[in-house]
Amino acid sequence: MPMKPGDKRPRPPRSHPGRGKPHRPEKPAPDREVPDRGPDGLPQVSLLRRGVERWQAGHPWIYRADLNGAPGLNQGEVVRVTDGRGWFLGKAFYSPHSKIALRWLSYEDVAVDEDFFRQRLAAANALRRHALPGESTYRVVHGEADQLPGLVVDRYGDYLSVQFLVPAMEARKALIADLLTELFKPRGIVNRSDVGVRNLEGLVPEKGLLRGELPGPISFDEGLVRMRADLLEGQKTGAFLDQRENHVLAAQYASGEALDCFAYVGGFALQLATRAQRVTAVEISEAAAAQLRDNAAANRLSNLEVVTANAFDFLRDAVDEGKRFDTIVLDPPSFAKNKDAVAAALRGYKEINLRAMQLLRPGGFLISASCTYHVDEQAFEDMLASAAADARRRVQIIERRGAGKDHPVILNLRETRYLKCFVLRVL
Amino acid sequence: MPMKPGDKRPRPPRSHPGRGKPHRPEKPAPDREVPDRGPDGLPQVSLLRRGVERWQAGHPWIYRADLNGAPGLNQGEVVRVTDGRGWFLGKAFYSPHSKIALRWLSYEDVAVDEDFFRQRLAAANALRRHALPGESTYRVVHGEADQLPGLVVDRYGDYLSVQFLVPAMEARKALIADLLTELFKPRGIVNRSDVGVRNLEGLVPEKGLLRGELPGPISFDEGLVRMRADLLEGQKTGAFLDQRENHVLAAQYASGEALDCFAYVGGFALQLATRAQRVTAVEISEAAAAQLRDNAAANRLSNLEVVTANAFDFLRDAVDEGKRFDTIVLDPPSFAKNKDAVAAALRGYKEINLRAMQLLRPGGFLISASCTYHVDEQAFEDMLASAAADARRRVQIIERRGAGKDHPVILNLRETRYLKCFVLRVL
Repeated sequence: MPMKPGDKRPRPPRSHPGRGKPHRPEKPAPDREVPDRGPDGLPQVSLLRRGVERWQAGHPWIYRADLNGAPGLNQGEVVRVTDGRGWFLGKAFYSPHSKIALRWLSYEDVAVDEDFFRQRLAAANALRRHALPGESTYRVVHGEADQLPGLVVDRYGDYLSVQFLVPAMEARKALIADLLTELFKPRGIVNRSDVGVRNLEGLVPEKGLLRGELPGPISFDEGLVRMRADLLEGQKTGAFLDQRENHVLAAQYASGEALDCFAYVGGFALQLATRAQRVTAVEISEAAAAQLRDNAAANRLSNLEVVTANAFDFLRDAVDEGKRFDTIVLDPPSFAKNKDAVAAALRGYKEINLRAMQLLRPGGFLISASCTYHVDEQAFEDMLASAAADARRRVQIIERRGAGKDHPVILNLRETRYLKCFVLRVL
Repeated sequence: MPMKPGDKRPRPPRSHPGRGKPHRPEKPAPDREVPDRGPDGLPQVSLLRRGVERWQAGHPWIYRADLNGAPGLNQGEVVRVTDGRGWFLGKAFYSPHSKIALRWLSYEDVAVDEDFFRQRLAAANALRRHALPGESTYRVVHGEADQLPGLVVDRYGDYLSVQFLVPAMEARKALIADLLTELFKPRGIVNRSDVGVRNLEGLVPEKGLLRGELPGPISFDEGLVRMRADLLEGQKTGAFLDQRENHVLAAQYASGEALDCFAYVGGFALQLATRAQRVTAVEISEAAAAQLRDNAAANRLSNLEVVTANAFDFLRDAVDEGKRFDTIVLDPPSFAKNKDAVAAALRGYKEINLRAMQLLRPGGFLISASCTYHVDEQAFEDMLASAAADARRRVQIIERRGAGKDHPVILNLRETRYLKCFVLRVL
């Protein structure tokens, strides 16, 4: 059962309404390997003071260092969590290998059973029905942000692509597949758990068909453009759904001569081509460039030229040659895989954004994105300001966007806000 | 002439392409009251080092303390600005009374004449044609952000409402009115320069009809809702155009029982009523509440009840009475007129947001806005997180919005980003 509104939970160690007395094991043994068990038979773990503070702040995770030990817990269990005095705080998934030991499922003392997950999936889908009415391609579940830690579900019409990212979700793979089948009656469910982050959890990457069938690459609409995705072999779960709304928006700002750098299979470039007179799409991978050409042909967009080149080189040469554009999109891959690489990443972003500003005609639009997790919005905006100053161009921010509305952000967890997408106008 | 793309201006005191040799007056007099004059006859002022640094950073203003004196300059002049060695930096409006002494018009050595303003107005309008296609009600000019310092122009279909906020714009009132007439052929142009900020510039507030006629309150559309605005007596230039896109968006998130606090004349409440089963609109002003009722009747929205009450009291009582809502909008007036009032403002925001979170059913939407200039987005978001933690509710950020796309923000001037509007989902 989800939390009830107005149910203001008291904070230990002050007054407590008495739900579930402190449960203390009868024979506390200092070095036992058998976990405490709560009244419902679930293993029970308690938090150190800092863990309780994180619970109070509403943070969705508890780090291992903030646990008061975790004796004898098994991979992927649901645990009862208490404070140091034994007061119930909530239920969580336990991860034995990750630094993130607990991921909250509920602050309520509810059964974590089939019906719990059925309701959580339905609630997640309800958001998308409101935020993206009429859409059939969207992220259904965005992990912790939908109170379903370690689960990602993307819907592409009649097909679903799923990631199981923590042991407790991995252990419930069949249950989740059953519930998704019940909710969406999909033709096929693909497991795309082939991601490195699973290694941190002691899970090996894996992928394959989980349910039903997959006849090959599938088609889906983005605005007026029809796209194809290979759910088994494509990037992420098949496509970049997080940029979907931004792709469609780009058409609105397109006119005259448009340029899309780091074009991949054309998410932005095809949208630009629906409005601009002429589009140049720059993509370094021959395979992606070929697919982009196929996508353009399938959409009968003949005003799009694909250039197989390094975008940095292309931009430098275009400035040297005095080229001019009316709309430019920059949507590069992540430039920094870790914090140490941030300075170099910002230099890279500044170089491409500065050149794009130099290439734009007065009043031209620059749609500039960054999916680098370690470069936050503030740092990205500062970089843009620095590029504008060097270009001696006045720049207006028209929209500051992020991932689509089907990728909610947890209020207390800014780390989940990895995608930045600014719509700028260069005067 | 607007800046050309790729025209990377050199930075003094390094290399300089030679456009306009340093202009030095023939007889420098230490205490003269007559300003230097540039080659085009315009008075010339030079900047101290910090002023040049601000110019380099692309900031749209120069403070008086960063001027190397301003002898004999008249109210509202256009001046040539140079660095300490006499190199040309740009042209700017001069304000004799404000702490902001200069507002840049151009980094180029162009004539600031009728055609200059004609082009600037056309460029500003061009943004809105792209960003808000098909709209006839929008902010045409947003001051510095449109490189037209001290000028605000709002369009309500066939009528324009204008603010002149600095002496140099005030001195060009007739020119601006002529050019706006040429561009829009409006039925009437209203001057709404009745704002306190004019006092800082040595100008007295004034309002009245500038051109044409105004038959009384006028009508305009917001999404499916028809609104009325009194361009001469209403708030701001007649209505709150900055919230226009957010108003329309609110309908999308409305369902079941909806609540709009600080409802004013119904910008949000009427939108909610197009989708929700039942809307309660709370407004403390009898006059605004009466206009809201009229607006509801004119739109044949009978599912809307207007409660004349203090929103803080209403929310507290609603929590005490165990009321529940599916959608809540909080769009209060500014809670802090200056920096000293920020702490109290944040307490006020937290109180209303905490109560709204308590009142929402699981999965309900909270649209929470703040127009308090001194509370930035980060502080506002931290307040929301604190309210969510106290309410023991998990909260998703679905959208982080600001003023509409017709209110651009200068990349280097975050101060212009006063309006925050978050779409939250309370789990």
